[in-house]
Amino acid sequence: MVYAVETETILILKGNIIFTPTSDQFVVFPKSYLVIHDGIVREIIEKLPEQYADCPLRDYGDRLIIPGFVDLHTHAPQFNQRGLGLDLQLLEWLNNYTFKEESRFQETTYAAAVYEKFAQELVRQGTTRVAAFATIHKESSQILFDTLVNKGIGAYVGKVNMDCNCPDSLREDTQTSLAETEELIKQWAGNPLVKLIITPRFAITSTRNLLAGLGELAVKYNLPVQSHLSENKAEVDFVAELFPEQKEYHKVYDHYQLFGQTPTLMAHCIYLTDEAVAVMKNNGVVAVHCPDSNLNLSSGIMPARKLLTAGVKVGLGSDIGAGHDLFMPRTILKAVQMSKAIYSVDNDQKALTLAEAFYMGTKGGGAFFGKVGSFEQGYSCDALVIDDDMGRVEGQSLIERLQRFIYTGDSVNIVARYVAGREVK
Amino acid sequence: MVYAVETETILILKGNIIFTPTSDQFVVFPKSYLVIHDGIVREIIEKLPEQYADCPLRDYGDRLIIPGFVDLHTHAPQFNQRGLGLDLQLLEWLNNYTFKEESRFQETTYAAAVYEKFAQELVRQGTTRVAAFATIHKESSQILFDTLVNKGIGAYVGKVNMDCNCPDSLREDTQTSLAETEELIKQWAGNPLVKLIITPRFAITSTRNLLAGLGELAVKYNLPVQSHLSENKAEVDFVAELFPEQKEYHKVYDHYQLFGQTPTLMAHCIYLTDEAVAVMKNNGVVAVHCPDSNLNLSSGIMPARKLLTAGVKVGLGSDIGAGHDLFMPRTILKAVQMSKAIYSVDNDQKALTLAEAFYMGTKGGGAFFGKVGSFEQGYSCDALVIDDDMGRVEGQSLIERLQRFIYTGDSVNIVARYVAGREVK
Repeated sequence: MVYAVETETILILKGNIIFTPTSDQFVVFPKSYLVIHDGIVREIIEKLPEQYADCPLRDYGDRLIIPGFVDLHTHAPQFNQRGLGLDLQLLEWLNNYTFKEESRFQETTYAAAVYEKFAQELVRQGTTRVAAFATIHKESSQILFDTLVNKGIGAYVGKVNMDCNCPDSLREDTQTSLAETEELIKQWAGNPLVKLIITPRFAITSTRNLLAGLGELAVKYNLPVQSHLSENKAEVDFVAELFPEQKEYHKVYDHYQLFGQTPTLMAHCIYLTDEAVAVMKNNGVVAVHCPDSNLNLSSGIMPARKLLTAGVKVGLGSDIGAGHDLFMPRTILKAVQMSKAIYSVDNDQKALTLAEAFYMGTKGGGAFFGKVGSFEQGYSCDALVIDDDMGRVEGQSLIERLQRFIYTGDSVNIVARYVAGREVK
Repeated sequence: MVYAVETETILILKGNIIFTPTSDQFVVFPKSYLVIHDGIVREIIEKLPEQYADCPLRDYGDRLIIPGFVDLHTHAPQFNQRGLGLDLQLLEWLNNYTFKEESRFQETTYAAAVYEKFAQELVRQGTTRVAAFATIHKESSQILFDTLVNKGIGAYVGKVNMDCNCPDSLREDTQTSLAETEELIKQWAGNPLVKLIITPRFAITSTRNLLAGLGELAVKYNLPVQSHLSENKAEVDFVAELFPEQKEYHKVYDHYQLFGQTPTLMAHCIYLTDEAVAVMKNNGVVAVHCPDSNLNLSSGIMPARKLLTAGVKVGLGSDIGAGHDLFMPRTILKAVQMSKAIYSVDNDQKALTLAEAFYMGTKGGGAFFGKVGSFEQGYSCDALVIDDDMGRVEGQSLIERLQRFIYTGDSVNIVARYVAGREVK
């Protein structure tokens, strides 16, 4: 296909291009040109035709060009808390560490300092799209929006809503919580890269009125939703106690239009009945697998294969600070490892392949943001350039080089990052 | 206690000293002096007395000083193979990847190049003591000894012995295998830091004559032994088929004096009967936990708590190349995470604490090398200096800073390494 060429809006990246258009395999374009028009992938070509001769070209030589990573669940205010208190389980950990830390975000200067470090670390680690929880504080949430906009990262940011079962310092008045959320909704309606996502922390810290109001806002403004579901057995029991009229955890969200009525992310999804899985599938709710977090808090292991087989969409999350690691290749790898741990005791649940987990961390999770996470025509050009010269082994194929990067690589191997065709630093 | 001071043999390191003299907790000496005499820890003191005034002092300020890490199971020749072929299980992975790679070590130039990279990476990642498999090749094994000596790392190196159930290129004549092993034994009898360890690959690749001969050599020269035990169900079944006269896998080694008759390391130990566990305990055999490897090859999860409760000593191994990561803090963390995965389905098996896993990766594993892995008086001064300034959080305790390093740190945080009081680079 021959395009008209507007040199000023074209950018061309050259290198060994690898991605997963489908979850079953890596597709490789050796030493090829990725042609980007207005931030969108136009085509991948082996030889550059005359028409592009005057367009800006960045030649990355023998390096790998892969999609940027998508982190579908993380808590920005817990960045300073990584690696601490992980001898506890979920509810104790929230009360003893997390709620104390999040209370500090009433101070905007503290928030600004932490969010700057968090955003800088996302860039460094190669995350180009993130769905992040902030805290209940409107001003601090505003700072997280601003910080991510300034860095040029694509994001959904959630001002957290909580109005019960939490310390006084984090308990909101229901109407104020809804009103402040609506103010932020209006304020962030227009940004192309950083958007608001409706974020009840989880059923436990939400009154019925809060859930009802948030569901109405989500539907009214057609906004996506993120929350937590069935992470820990004590949590599941507590939800059953708090919401006896709903027979199951997921029904609490579903009842209040927070479970797929608009695009929805549910983190963890470890202890689900078959019925809950069927509803997730039918409602298109995305299950976000956070293996490090689930291990660190002794929560259990999400049955990723079982969910995939049932037709549920699965993405990956770092879940900072219960998770400790923002480098998504290690979460990709951990998802594979956990599926193998399940397989070793239940041969019916086939292990994830590396391509499947890479897909989850790129195109699979990226779908929540639109056409993101692939280099097919029409996709946003979110890309990383990988320099794997250090420790390179002669004779390795491009796919082996990518495997090697995922297993043994680090942020130092990432030498350039692009979000929607724009380089971020 | 007041010591006579021979300034020329004393070295003093100053910093925040942390280690685990017992497995139940970290012990902390803030801003203290670690006094080393001839490579051995003499004492830790808060204020430097007059007698040491003229001794060389390296002041590491507010940095952490911790014991060097001990890697009790790894395969040096598989360094180039990390991260590849991990969609397979043990026996297929050996046949399709590992044996091909190890065959290349017939060429000494290839061996020299790989072993240099391996040793350099050990230093960079903060491993100060290692028990390593080489290959069957005497000349290449010799190169691994030399390389580790040159780097100044403390090591047990095993020339691998195999005389059946492997490709022709790696199958040794039994008598030649034993004779070459004995030559290396004599050659390396005197080195203080790098020593030989008897290394039948595993029961499957050993004839009865080979095992008998190796057991005799171990006892005759009082040399330690390393091998693999009960890693994978198909492997366990194959051993039962090959050695029907021994009722169980561990009895094959025990019968031939390769199971605690001299100090012995057995990697993996996933599928053990209670009787096998009791024999390990009685014979003092060390179980080496290699969580990454066991996950990568879908082998299963070693029940570390169960072994510890039964009185078996447990250390940690990277198990390159089925494992992919030489940075031992991540293996420490993975051991904790795997114990939590077990705990989440069996509350009787209490999760490992971080201190317990740190102990396994320092003093616990270090015991195989003598007084190694602690800063108690009389211990070899194997130490790392950790600079955690980047990402430091105000107000964190020293133990929290160490936790943070283990969860989120990297080799770049290690700014100095000492083995037996000598700095290695």
